[in-house]
Amino acid sequence: MTNQITGVNGPITGWLDGHTYLIGLMAYPIRHSMSPTMHNNAFAKLGLNYTYLCFEIGNDKLASAVDAIRTLDMRGSNVSMPNKKEVIKYLDKLSPASEMCDAVNTIVNDQGVLTGYTTDGIGFVQALKAEGIEIKDKIITLTGAGGAATPIAVQSALDGAKEIKMFNIQDDKWAQAEKNVQTIQEKTACKVSLTDLSNQAAFKQAIAESDIYCDATSVGMKPLEDKTLVSDPSWFHKEMVVFDTVYAPRTTKLMEVAQAAGVEHIFNGIGMMIEQGAASFKLWTGQDMPTDYIREIMFTDK
Amino acid sequence: MTNQITGVNGPITGWLDGHTYLIGLMAYPIRHSMSPTMHNNAFAKLGLNYTYLCFEIGNDKLASAVDAIRTLDMRGSNVSMPNKKEVIKYLDKLSPASEMCDAVNTIVNDQGVLTGYTTDGIGFVQALKAEGIEIKDKIITLTGAGGAATPIAVQSALDGAKEIKMFNIQDDKWAQAEKNVQTIQEKTACKVSLTDLSNQAAFKQAIAESDIYCDATSVGMKPLEDKTLVSDPSWFHKEMVVFDTVYAPRTTKLMEVAQAAGVEHIFNGIGMMIEQGAASFKLWTGQDMPTDYIREIMFTDK
Repeated sequence: MTNQITGVNGPITGWLDGHTYLIGLMAYPIRHSMSPTMHNNAFAKLGLNYTYLCFEIGNDKLASAVDAIRTLDMRGSNVSMPNKKEVIKYLDKLSPASEMCDAVNTIVNDQGVLTGYTTDGIGFVQALKAEGIEIKDKIITLTGAGGAATPIAVQSALDGAKEIKMFNIQDDKWAQAEKNVQTIQEKTACKVSLTDLSNQAAFKQAIAESDIYCDATSVGMKPLEDKTLVSDPSWFHKEMVVFDTVYAPRTTKLMEVAQAAGVEHIFNGIGMMIEQGAASFKLWTGQDMPTDYIREIMFTDK
Repeated sequence: MTNQITGVNGPITGWLDGHTYLIGLMAYPIRHSMSPTMHNNAFAKLGLNYTYLCFEIGNDKLASAVDAIRTLDMRGSNVSMPNKKEVIKYLDKLSPASEMCDAVNTIVNDQGVLTGYTTDGIGFVQALKAEGIEIKDKIITLTGAGGAATPIAVQSALDGAKEIKMFNIQDDKWAQAEKNVQTIQEKTACKVSLTDLSNQAAFKQAIAESDIYCDATSVGMKPLEDKTLVSDPSWFHKEMVVFDTVYAPRTTKLMEVAQAAGVEHIFNGIGMMIEQGAASFKLWTGQDMPTDYIREIMFTDK
């Protein structure tokens, strides 16, 4: 409980009244999330009568929580760990990307019909687009095989990327990653491969041949902020994009290596985070999130 | 959907973030309610990290809606028509007043334990107290036998009223009203009677002997705004209180009759409405609602 609310100056009318519709974020843990601040400020800015709140929901309470979306006629919800896959069985429909990812991060409730979407990959593609970079025909090297890497690969493939060279260690995500590669191959025109990250020669070669290198692992994020999967600047070329999905710290070790290599287009995960939110926002409200405003008020440090 | 939010001036922080707890109002119909505006402005004023929203819930969805209180770890909820009695079977505990009224308008969720309260009667008693009038030892004539009259009678009796003379027509509420009278007699020291309103001599006599006349029927409220149960000013005496639970219109026909009689203390239902909200607010937050502020911003016309 805080004791200081800023931004409210006098009586609130036209919002948080009897006509306000609720949107949730169901995950555990979740109270630290920046999503409510992002969405509620966007609603306030545009004069949209919704509000967005976090609910601590694990797999055990997920069925009841999805019931609550229907019962309370919520407009929808985000879902995050540990519910992204688990929630699918409670929904009525899935978007193609969601089906290919076998994961959902956004639920839209259309008069009791719940459709699952995944906007994480859209966030990646849109973050690049906002910087003038189209994903179409690009060759991408992508590290990771989890909740960030999968939708990035799927959406990039759906949006016309030429080739995605995925690398991961042979951990518990490996088997699923192999299936994902197969699914993307079957359903899109994109060429996709999965290689063991321990094959460093192949990894180096892939980056050299790529337009975009994207790290979608948690390497570089606290407590791994001193780590990077690429530590030799010579692996990069200046014309390429280096994209780290991590946003805390704002400048990761990977980004420093890319800077040392003179790479022109280096991005952290802030843009992707805002754009995935904007994509969900659009699904719920039909409106474009004022992303410049959100970036300005929430991420003045970048 | 409105397109104009007032009161928000720049980015909102410290509210509507990941730490915000939800409070509901479950009823049908309900979107017209003023309660969200009242509570949300009070939260904003005091810097309390809650928000209050309406949910259209009838008896058919009530069990699921109460489940949602637990699942989403809501701080609680108001309930109104048609759920005030029906909700009891889904709760864990009841306040004494709630038990006596066989009705609940407020649910408090203490870590999964749901307790039902009724604050409508507290609203009546507190509205008088705010005007310097104590209910203790008072003789009250009360018309009505429904959702307003019952908690007014129960709370007045619990708070030490000397006698309550209830009057009602012999409608479908009569049998329940007889039971209520018996319950109050058994559980409090207050003398209570129920008389048919068609006995106008008894009604006139009761008012003459009373310190307070309270009309807790919907007579005087639109579309019955031209009606009053007492139309002869000579029935009132100047020293008494005349209290109409109706607040639309602000000045009812009954109040005009009381004015014509020179009655000093005449009140509409605004104070009761604010004070019942304040009592619920206190149960959820532990804080006193800033009732003067709420009256000022919401009811400048009185």
